[in-house]
Amino acid sequence: MAGTHLPRIGITQGDPAGVGLEVTGKALADGAVRGLAEITVFGVPPEPLPEGVSVVSPPGVDVGRAPPGRPSAEGGEASIRFVMAAIEAAQAGRIDAIVTGPISKEAVRMAGYPWPGHTELLAEKFGASEYAMMFAGGPLRVVLVTIHVALAEAIRSLTSEAILRAMRLADESLRRDFGIAVPRLGVCGLNPHAGEAGRFGHEEREIIEPALDEARAAGMCVLGPLPPDTAFHQALAGKFDLVVAMYHDQGLIAVKTVAFEQSVNVTLGLPIVRTSVDHGTAYDIAGRGEANPESMKAAIRLAAEMTAARRSAS
Amino acid sequence: MAGTHLPRIGITQGDPAGVGLEVTGKALADGAVRGLAEITVFGVPPEPLPEGVSVVSPPGVDVGRAPPGRPSAEGGEASIRFVMAAIEAAQAGRIDAIVTGPISKEAVRMAGYPWPGHTELLAEKFGASEYAMMFAGGPLRVVLVTIHVALAEAIRSLTSEAILRAMRLADESLRRDFGIAVPRLGVCGLNPHAGEAGRFGHEEREIIEPALDEARAAGMCVLGPLPPDTAFHQALAGKFDLVVAMYHDQGLIAVKTVAFEQSVNVTLGLPIVRTSVDHGTAYDIAGRGEANPESMKAAIRLAAEMTAARRSAS
Repeated sequence: MAGTHLPRIGITQGDPAGVGLEVTGKALADGAVRGLAEITVFGVPPEPLPEGVSVVSPPGVDVGRAPPGRPSAEGGEASIRFVMAAIEAAQAGRIDAIVTGPISKEAVRMAGYPWPGHTELLAEKFGASEYAMMFAGGPLRVVLVTIHVALAEAIRSLTSEAILRAMRLADESLRRDFGIAVPRLGVCGLNPHAGEAGRFGHEEREIIEPALDEARAAGMCVLGPLPPDTAFHQALAGKFDLVVAMYHDQGLIAVKTVAFEQSVNVTLGLPIVRTSVDHGTAYDIAGRGEANPESMKAAIRLAAEMTAARRSAS
Repeated sequence: MAGTHLPRIGITQGDPAGVGLEVTGKALADGAVRGLAEITVFGVPPEPLPEGVSVVSPPGVDVGRAPPGRPSAEGGEASIRFVMAAIEAAQAGRIDAIVTGPISKEAVRMAGYPWPGHTELLAEKFGASEYAMMFAGGPLRVVLVTIHVALAEAIRSLTSEAILRAMRLADESLRRDFGIAVPRLGVCGLNPHAGEAGRFGHEEREIIEPALDEARAAGMCVLGPLPPDTAFHQALAGKFDLVVAMYHDQGLIAVKTVAFEQSVNVTLGLPIVRTSVDHGTAYDIAGRGEANPESMKAAIRLAAEMTAARRSAS
């Protein structure tokens, strides 16, 4: 693949009853964003269709049947078919990256599909056994070790293997997709003050430190376990290229508080680049023209940058 | 007490082996800060002694005996005597507020005292049975329901009573000390997405919602349980006057990431105003002249504002 060609990005529209098409259309109306890539929208054509943008509308999808502004089986069905079409295009080598618009877990379940979200669907279809969720864009990059489980369950399920996997995927992606030759990972503790030498919990010594030792033995540059409340400040000050968070809110409170509209969800461990808006379907404002396209723009920009870095690395 | 008089603030120096005296001296060298209050330093005199600042040096304390740059029994003993002298002054009506410099838990323990921190010492001496830790300054105000315990223990020990107590203390302080007639409290859930209707944990339904119901019945304006990752963004956007966080890092990741040097620790539930720097003794840089006085300045400013508001409310 020639490095001089533009990245080829597929954007999936998301649930037709949500704000996905609106944010896609608004993002592509920005010439600076549109000019970053050859863009294909998987869904219905945005109106007006921006110059140079292709559209793939999968057969058999009638988005008019999805009632607007709420989850439905029809909306869930369309959401999944748009993503499936983009996966096929990626597997056939026609696109380099997928940027996903927002889908509804509930609508997808109503349509009878088993995946709780894009990440699991993409991992299955691409045969990825090890994957992780990263948030990037704005001034912070964060990888989560555990995701959508109760906090008590996140603590119980924390293992050195899962932490090491997240560190390895992050290290690999920072080298390949972000062009950072020696990534520095800041790794959070689980407990306040990272346990204060065992006074407030033992997970740091028993689970996190062994993972850090293994990572160092494998040649990674890792620091931790860090007191979680100051780790993100240190990352903002340039001390780390990425923070590894032990649980969902440990990472996302920092990301969403400092970079609400700029933050992009990235799936690590796939053979292609995948980014996503970090907001939901926003059914409550769908169809009103009020949706903010900044997260979609940031997701397109980051997909273009990651694809370009991946090409020069290969 | 006449409202036209300046607030009378006592500053305790903290551990003499740490940066407490240095940040106090630097903060009081700023005429705009010094002019906010009648100031008494409880400790050794800063050099040079800023004009108009009084010093109370408790008898029997020889700070020269505390080895610099590390925790010692001598440093712990001096730390506690400075605070005790300020408490006496407050109880005798000579000062309105105490601003505390950083002490070392380890040094205090080496000196044979039982209190893990200022908060517990002040609560005991002032006979406060209900108290809570608030972080303020910068753009966020946060109250913590649980503090220095392992995360798993914070989850196990979470009760509706503790949440209601934190809400009540916050509501009271916002009215009296911050002049907010109808405080709006945003109350975090415990789990990702506030449990997503029970899919990721039941603490929201079983513990947090009953506390919110009681608070509403008592006339408080409370919203929640909020998804923790977006609650602080909403507070920054002006939707709430304060966020109630269920555990240490839920609140402090947000505070320290957006307002590292501006954040001030406030004890709610005492008969006097008490603020504190939100950094430690920083033994590693003590004596080098490198310590940043911004947190001490912010603590003095906030103590002056809170005292003035309390006077006009009474």
